[in-house]
Amino acid sequence: MHTKPATKALLFDVFGTVLDWRTSIVEELAAFGNTHSIELDCEAVADRWRVGFRDHQRKIAQDAAPFMRMDDVHRRVLDRLFAGLGVAGVPEANLQELNQAWHRLRPWPDAVAGLTRLKERYTVAALSNGNLSMLVGVSKYAGLPWDCVFSTAMFSAYKPDPAVYWGAAKMLEAPPHEAMMVAAHAYDVDAAREIGLQTAYVFRADEFGPGQGEDPGDTSRFDFAVGDLLELADALA
Amino acid sequence: MHTKPATKALLFDVFGTVLDWRTSIVEELAAFGNTHSIELDCEAVADRWRVGFRDHQRKIAQDAAPFMRMDDVHRRVLDRLFAGLGVAGVPEANLQELNQAWHRLRPWPDAVAGLTRLKERYTVAALSNGNLSMLVGVSKYAGLPWDCVFSTAMFSAYKPDPAVYWGAAKMLEAPPHEAMMVAAHAYDVDAAREIGLQTAYVFRADEFGPGQGEDPGDTSRFDFAVGDLLELADALA
Repeated sequence: MHTKPATKALLFDVFGTVLDWRTSIVEELAAFGNTHSIELDCEAVADRWRVGFRDHQRKIAQDAAPFMRMDDVHRRVLDRLFAGLGVAGVPEANLQELNQAWHRLRPWPDAVAGLTRLKERYTVAALSNGNLSMLVGVSKYAGLPWDCVFSTAMFSAYKPDPAVYWGAAKMLEAPPHEAMMVAAHAYDVDAAREIGLQTAYVFRADEFGPGQGEDPGDTSRFDFAVGDLLELADALA
Repeated sequence: MHTKPATKALLFDVFGTVLDWRTSIVEELAAFGNTHSIELDCEAVADRWRVGFRDHQRKIAQDAAPFMRMDDVHRRVLDRLFAGLGVAGVPEANLQELNQAWHRLRPWPDAVAGLTRLKERYTVAALSNGNLSMLVGVSKYAGLPWDCVFSTAMFSAYKPDPAVYWGAAKMLEAPPHEAMMVAAHAYDVDAAREIGLQTAYVFRADEFGPGQGEDPGDTSRFDFAVGDLLELADALA
């Protein structure tokens, strides 16, 4: 932790950093299972859905798969998961509705209050691999008070491509050292750090289930390492 | 006025439609004149500043002048105005501060309440020729509750280039007939109408001074013609 840097713009990862995707998705899967009388290990399915999404997204980022928007990747992974589990006969409209669960995610308890405090002093912007309409939808649902919303699709790239961090900072007319990437995933924060952005790592202890947080390694490489967005607001006050 | 159309996204012009640029700029010019003991016809200067901006912007849109961000156009016009008026010797920092007046504009009295109501049902997005950092700054200042903010610079074009309206609707995954352009300037609404967007014309009776609103001609060509954003919220409720 060093002295407070000059910061104009805070760029936030959304899924996992601001939104608690797992709790929401597990609940939606449980409701879906009840409605259709399908027995699902909802926690396992939620985790495999997320992992499947990230694997496919990595392939796209490495040009090993064609570009596909986040909603479509979610659907593709869901279809494969259900095929593997022998889930069949669900009407298309209900599958679409279930896939839309990723637009109905709850924020972490500190997120709205933390963003609201940070917004008083800084520009707070979403920077996510989600498609813009999804980001807008989920932000409305969760009441996230963004100053502006960037989808990496605007820069024709996916995180952790450096073009994305440069692009967002440039749009906000912030030199890289006056922009800060805030995320709960080390790969994301590290990529921003490598091109000169400031960094805040948010340790989400329960992102992948109770007590199942990411292990980021030694956090001294980040400008800030915090437990939630209220702690970040304190640190940047 | 016909029956309520299916609408997903409302795209708003900002300067003049949501923000009362003139009252704010006249006040800033008056304060500037007092500080520097310069006698200015503040209303005339404000109007010439705005007209000068729009003239130059039109040249850029027609490729008759190189691209320049809104802040820089404002500064260029201000420098020429002051040169013409014989205003000289003002420190650079104060001129920069005066140019920043365009980041400190008050909303029309109905704007925040109107956007807040419309946001409950629709995606509300700014779509302006201003540079993004300016749009974010002025929106923070005025407390505008956007779902997202588009600068036409994101589409490498200026309104009324059709690429801008298409681009914003596409980003929000709204087919043109499910997006609506909302503006106080007929050229803007007409350009959106020509490529199939829905339209709402907002008559700002005092935009160019008391009782000095734009004459849009016959408004029956628009889907809606309203006096302010609360009226629009009523019409779209």
